[in-house]
Amino acid sequence: MRKPIITLLTDFGTKDHYVASMKGVILSINPQCTLVDITHEVHPQDVQEGAILLANAFSYFPKGTIHVAVVDPGVGGRRKPILLQTKNYLFVGPDNGLFTLAAKRDGVKQVIHLTHRKYFLPDISNTFHGRDIFAPVAAHLSLAINPRRFGNKLDHWVKLSLKEPEVKGKNLYGKILLIDRFGNLITNIEKEIFFRFIKDQPFQIRVREKIIRDLKRGYDEGKKNDPMALIGSGGFLEISVREGNAQEMLKMKRGDPIKISTKSQIPNPK
Amino acid sequence: MRKPIITLLTDFGTKDHYVASMKGVILSINPQCTLVDITHEVHPQDVQEGAILLANAFSYFPKGTIHVAVVDPGVGGRRKPILLQTKNYLFVGPDNGLFTLAAKRDGVKQVIHLTHRKYFLPDISNTFHGRDIFAPVAAHLSLAINPRRFGNKLDHWVKLSLKEPEVKGKNLYGKILLIDRFGNLITNIEKEIFFRFIKDQPFQIRVREKIIRDLKRGYDEGKKNDPMALIGSGGFLEISVREGNAQEMLKMKRGDPIKISTKSQIPNPK
Amino acid sequence: MRKPIITLLTDFGTKDHYVASMKGVILSINPQCTLVDITHEVHPQDVQEGAILLANAFSYFPKGTIHVAVVDPGVGGRRKPILLQTKNYLFVGPDNGLFTLAAKRDGVKQVIHLTHRKYFLPDISNTFHGRDIFAPVAAHLSLAINPRRFGNKLDHWVKLSLKEPEVKGKNLYGKILLIDRFGNLITNIEKEIFFRFIKDQPFQIRVREKIIRDLKRGYDEGKKNDPMALIGSGGFLEISVREGNAQEMLKMKRGDPIKISTKSQIPNPK
Repeated sequence: MRKPIITLLTDFGTKDHYVASMKGVILSINPQCTLVDITHEVHPQDVQEGAILLANAFSYFPKGTIHVAVVDPGVGGRRKPILLQTKNYLFVGPDNGLFTLAAKRDGVKQVIHLTHRKYFLPDISNTFHGRDIFAPVAAHLSLAINPRRFGNKLDHWVKLSLKEPEVKGKNLYGKILLIDRFGNLITNIEKEIFFRFIKDQPFQIRVREKIIRDLKRGYDEGKKNDPMALIGSGGFLEISVREGNAQEMLKMKRGDPIKISTKSQIPNPK
Repeated sequence: MRKPIITLLTDFGTKDHYVASMKGVILSINPQCTLVDITHEVHPQDVQEGAILLANAFSYFPKGTIHVAVVDPGVGGRRKPILLQTKNYLFVGPDNGLFTLAAKRDGVKQVIHLTHRKYFLPDISNTFHGRDIFAPVAAHLSLAINPRRFGNKLDHWVKLSLKEPEVKGKNLYGKILLIDRFGNLITNIEKEIFFRFIKDQPFQIRVREKIIRDLKRGYDEGKKNDPMALIGSGGFLEISVREGNAQEMLKMKRGDPIKISTKSQIPNPK
Repeated sequence: MRKPIITLLTDFGTKDHYVASMKGVILSINPQCTLVDITHEVHPQDVQEGAILLANAFSYFPKGTIHVAVVDPGVGGRRKPILLQTKNYLFVGPDNGLFTLAAKRDGVKQVIHLTHRKYFLPDISNTFHGRDIFAPVAAHLSLAINPRRFGNKLDHWVKLSLKEPEVKGKNLYGKILLIDRFGNLITNIEKEIFFRFIKDQPFQIRVREKIIRDLKRGYDEGKKNDPMALIGSGGFLEISVREGNAQEMLKMKRGDPIKISTKSQIPNPK
């Protein structure tokens, strides 16, 4: 049998004992698991950021991997604990939209409301379901217990409404979805949407006062201190600076706009 | 046989090669170990913080887990390297109080002075016993070598004197023990002490200028921008702000006071 | 058979999904691997820092360990992807000098240009060879595939020219190579070079305005708030402050000079 893999994505950081407690709980139930951190540095309670990072990473893991994700501002309240099964993976966490993107990409098979307390820790706090519910459920799943045994099927589950890029006339309006450690500005404009929009015409990408007129294939094609555009490793349009930091140079933050224009609609840059 | 688990807690951070060197040493001696990080972000040389974080996490791991902890301002000096065996766990590190809380909770069976150099690396630096003594000792322990073979039993070992909360008349005086990534203020007042003190009477919790008059059961019961009190996942009284940061809102730091009053002693909030 | 170990050293940080994607790719090819992080906090695109950290850690791992290192400003450009085999280890990453120090210490057996695409991911981005080339190559290596099957032997590979300390008359000029989490200033002066230079004579170490006249054996021998010199755990001359931070106290940064003088050449400290 394949060695079960459980990944963890949270907003817990790594300075406290929270993540380690979850790992201890998992290993107490199934010491054979391989544990892998996706990240624990999601901004506190930023469900959307968690959803994006999870979507970027989950599909590189072997089929059958169990992904536990806990960005959970509603912990202890009315939001449900769920298990979401997609075509190839299992996801465990709060029903608050965290799985929206991953589920969309891999295709949902079923969503289970976690209610069977036999698979939880004996005492459930109101503040740390990561340790008390999600970790033990994931560990039991890794022992090949059928998802249906954890609770009843849900017909409805919470989805994030992520703003998609919008086409208005000859302009495509997007925004900065994520900024990585290198200051690369990752937009919400997927490769396919970008190429379908520009249709081999000349184009202009406008970000702040900067106009970019072509697409590079790799960072090494850019000039130093000059922002360039390219398709990043996640398949999104990205603004970068060779051996530099686009976020700092352009003074951008998450959510800031980016505009792509073709032909006659190309705006006067000032 | 159960797969041996070794956890690591240090103040080494993760930017340097220190933790990786320890892991390499362990895997060179026993490649079958599962390694789990508790945290490496204990403030440099803050033994008390290390002791608290270790106490919060150790008991979630399977019985028999070996916990290596290195917050070691006295490295290379006269402090002893020790192995501390409790009812269910093994702890390896410097004899400076780091194990005080965990040992108290799990019950000490024996403490061994690590002197048998056969279980150390051949060359021992004066600055990095984590790599040269504690990692190889833990790895050898994970091979089921009897603790008694690592050195002689100690009758005395160093204990931290952690300030306990104090009752004076109708007031209970505590302090902030730890502040987590979310800015939650975790006090040194354990649940049992709190409830024994208030005895179902009305109470006031005072932190800075803020007066809190009830206990919530979870973060979701709080109001935004309004500090609340609750019992946190570690069993301590905690001050939090729903979807916010209590540390920033109340401008608190570790060690700052908190005061609980009942009935007639409830102070005039000025 | 020994369980294969793959280590990872990058400048990717841990807040993004990059490192997790690499781990997912590796575990998809060989789920039996033990994965260990060396560090992911190399300063962005700082190949020299990566080379030093790798050199400090690699040799503590079991023989046969596969070290993947990705600090790769030239990704997608003309720099080659390589596999470098030393006497005891395998290294996988970009041909930009990252392996210079480790290779020098362990002795190079062969360097292979990674060209055999069968061992890569099917789609290769221009921006993330860590995931698309280096991770899958390392995973295939861990399945005991012969290094020669990954591509042709290279006669030339890129080496960093690290500035070595220089002797001029009675002075030895070095610099700060690395500053660790504790603010310890690790110089480029190896123990052997230091002792060969001073030859049992009285000496002065000058760092900023501070003069140090002896070598301590451990941190505990220093005085509080007074910088001391010692040989650190990596075998280099190091400036430290007992229970303090030498970087902050002396206001030093990487690359700053340090000067050692003997006898008559001892300079007037102002």
